[in-house]
Amino acid sequence: MPYELYYWPNIQGRGEFVRLALEAAAAPYVDVARSGRRGMDEMLGLMQGADLATPPFAPPFLRDGDLVIGQTAAILLHLGGKLGLAPADEAGRLWTHQIQLTVTDLVAEAHDSHHPIAVGLYYEDQRKEAKRRAQDFCRERMPKFLGWLERVLGQNPAGDSHLVGADLTYADLSLFQIVQGLTYAFPQAAQRTLAETPRVAALAARVKGIPAVAAYLASPRRIPLNEEGIFRHYPELDG
Amino acid sequence: MPYELYYWPNIQGRGEFVRLALEAAAAPYVDVARSGRRGMDEMLGLMQGADLATPPFAPPFLRDGDLVIGQTAAILLHLGGKLGLAPADEAGRLWTHQIQLTVTDLVAEAHDSHHPIAVGLYYEDQRKEAKRRAQDFCRERMPKFLGWLERVLGQNPAGDSHLVGADLTYADLSLFQIVQGLTYAFPQAAQRTLAETPRVAALAARVKGIPAVAAYLASPRRIPLNEEGIFRHYPELDG
Repeated sequence: MPYELYYWPNIQGRGEFVRLALEAAAAPYVDVARSGRRGMDEMLGLMQGADLATPPFAPPFLRDGDLVIGQTAAILLHLGGKLGLAPADEAGRLWTHQIQLTVTDLVAEAHDSHHPIAVGLYYEDQRKEAKRRAQDFCRERMPKFLGWLERVLGQNPAGDSHLVGADLTYADLSLFQIVQGLTYAFPQAAQRTLAETPRVAALAARVKGIPAVAAYLASPRRIPLNEEGIFRHYPELDG
Repeated sequence: MPYELYYWPNIQGRGEFVRLALEAAAAPYVDVARSGRRGMDEMLGLMQGADLATPPFAPPFLRDGDLVIGQTAAILLHLGGKLGLAPADEAGRLWTHQIQLTVTDLVAEAHDSHHPIAVGLYYEDQRKEAKRRAQDFCRERMPKFLGWLERVLGQNPAGDSHLVGADLTYADLSLFQIVQGLTYAFPQAAQRTLAETPRVAALAARVKGIPAVAAYLASPRRIPLNEEGIFRHYPELDG
């Protein structure tokens, strides 16, 4: 039975970290809310259903047989071992997950750079506050997060070609995705930061060239980045 | 060998979720940065060291033998099985973790209610923005998160006395901690929300009465909530 991914159909968003893992591993999956007119109803019905013992707080969530799993990082923790995208030993599995949780923190801050006041309000209603927050994000937070990933690569005993050990993990795929997103949203700040974090930039470029990833990126399954998602390009916020 | 917890010595903060698990399980641990004058140097040295294969991004982190683990939720994932504070089966372990990750999201939003612009600035420098964000937090986000926990309790096939199955897990301890924190920071909004989420309020009260937890709360090891941590009481933000 294919995996069932439930996520908003019009954005990369948090679901993209799961899509990338499934695609890189060539795992069979259905992107439910994008597959036909009833998909969105199915997603909302499953999420709001009163009979589910493990109701997810929000998309994305994954159905794998009897399991319904929410929270991007928890989905990847589950998929990592099954898809061969995480080490088999407990310490390696935990370290990969820890990197993903730090990526999760970065993603939340990238989102809040355009929505610092309320997720329920439009960007236009918090534009002034966004300008202040985005400035701090570009100058302090982005360098701090990418600098940490650079350090993780530099201190990897197996070398700096991957974040964990000597093989591809979902953490590498997630690094690629944040580099893509940050470069789209903040071209100037991202270029400046990536010049200081060459290992991060090189790994992102290598991931982009993995055949399964490249094929996915060229397919209609990859939704273009846009101003509805996490990483939004508002030129006035880049700096 | 006792566990070594590394966290800021003057706040409950994110470290408190780990402290509560260790205390509830009566596990031997050293709160390194609080144990003597060199503790803080040890913490910063370990975090910034160039020879650690798994450098944490930020406190809290835990040393367990050869393992150094960062990210609160990852620490609890690791400790849950060892301390008997999570189910033994993979599905239950993942569900407990998923709840913790949603608590993590709430904690980040509670923090940003007083720091919506920049973690590096004082509250006084973002007071106006904090007022807008806290209003949304109190009226929209807190009820959404606690409402979800209420639903998790109501839909637990083993009954509503615990979040996962019929036994205490670290998720229950974390629920207690956020109820404590929210009630301290936003007494009016928390009281209003808890009146609508009676199962959450009841579970928090039960956790408080667990002998090991009660003994910890009455000890000098429990740092009082204050205006340096995640949950801060600024009366103008409560509403």
